[in-house]
Amino acid sequence: MATKGEMLYEGKAKKVYITDQADLYIVEYKDDATAFNGDKKGQITGKGQLNNAISTIFMEMLNERGIPTHFVEKLNDREQLVKKVEIILLEVVVRNVAAGSLAKRLGMPEGTVLPKTVVEFYYKDDSLGDPLINDSHIEVLELATPETVKQLEVYGRQINDILVDYMKQRNVILVDFKLEFGITPSGEVILADEISPDTCRFWDADTKEKLDKDRFRRDMGGVEEAYQEMLKRLGGVEV
Amino acid sequence: MATKGEMLYEGKAKKVYITDQADLYIVEYKDDATAFNGDKKGQITGKGQLNNAISTIFMEMLNERGIPTHFVEKLNDREQLVKKVEIILLEVVVRNVAAGSLAKRLGMPEGTVLPKTVVEFYYKDDSLGDPLINDSHIEVLELATPETVKQLEVYGRQINDILVDYMKQRNVILVDFKLEFGITPSGEVILADEISPDTCRFWDADTKEKLDKDRFRRDMGGVEEAYQEMLKRLGGVEV
Repeated sequence: MATKGEMLYEGKAKKVYITDQADLYIVEYKDDATAFNGDKKGQITGKGQLNNAISTIFMEMLNERGIPTHFVEKLNDREQLVKKVEIILLEVVVRNVAAGSLAKRLGMPEGTVLPKTVVEFYYKDDSLGDPLINDSHIEVLELATPETVKQLEVYGRQINDILVDYMKQRNVILVDFKLEFGITPSGEVILADEISPDTCRFWDADTKEKLDKDRFRRDMGGVEEAYQEMLKRLGGVEV
Repeated sequence: MATKGEMLYEGKAKKVYITDQADLYIVEYKDDATAFNGDKKGQITGKGQLNNAISTIFMEMLNERGIPTHFVEKLNDREQLVKKVEIILLEVVVRNVAAGSLAKRLGMPEGTVLPKTVVEFYYKDDSLGDPLINDSHIEVLELATPETVKQLEVYGRQINDILVDYMKQRNVILVDFKLEFGITPSGEVILADEISPDTCRFWDADTKEKLDKDRFRRDMGGVEEAYQEMLKRLGGVEV
């Protein structure tokens, strides 16, 4: 077992700690919620525990299906043991249905089913507002090699195929989601961060009810209940 | 000779007329200047004649070097005869030095020489503010086939190579520029629109003085003089 050491980094929704093992970190999920690049701040009761539980289910499932991830094990209600990586400063967004910034950018009504899957890269930089960027921007900023960018897109699409099918069986439409990847000390590109209602848009397949952080972004209420409902549909134990 | 018929379309800087020949249009250059997606409006005395003369020089030069363009001939001070095309709703922007929206997007000081050429696609839609888009957005919007997108990037880079060298000989740095392409009735993709200080950023190589529409955008004065200077450096006759 790894023993928790000093805090390495505190993000908007998680803290990361070093451990006594050089290649392992501990991630702690917070209840803090932010939106619009930190302009909107709040707390969602129980979110830390819910997202820890939900992300664990997704990461274990993806590991089983051959997607390399940073996930090692869930340690307790709020903590996960993960592989040490250097985070690639790209947010990989995969979209099946128009919503949020895509609906706005392309002038499409929210809910429009996209005829093809959209993959986008955003530059992970809060001070710039995480702007959309393209392959030549990535080259100029040296955020990743062209080979890695290609790999990220392939992983993004593979994970989308797996998740769309998985969620469909739970009567949930996977509208879109954001992934982050990291590079291990040995140079392997693996999925990092989390997969949760903070990072995905989930809609009930029948009612189109939102079961994700849009309830917080748009002051819709029932935020904790939506996260609880997602955990329930994923077969997790209520927290 | 083609005879001018009805006006087909009036844009922000040009009018397009049909002619008595089915495959030819006449373009008329206006003095109207706009910036920031039309939020800033004005006139630049003589701009229509200057841009007609400048774009003629560029288009003839590119035609000679094997880039297919819509340009047929300059008819008079304000008018050009061009091949009829259907404009592809993509603005192809090629950048050598950080300026304008790129400097802002990537958090780079204006004037930073880019280690690699940046090519960007913007969705030509005023109501959306001409947003930056990527290949998967283009597919979803069906703005061009993946093959055409590839072709546009190749042309953009080829034209950049030609223009950078051409301007360097005239002591001008080609900072960036915007291209538009069209499809002829027979399906050929050719360069359309214009190449002028309205659509390029030109800086004097020694003083870095701006010789383009940024003087209008940023209320710097000396707009007409800058366009005149560009025409002079291109070897054109003063208008």
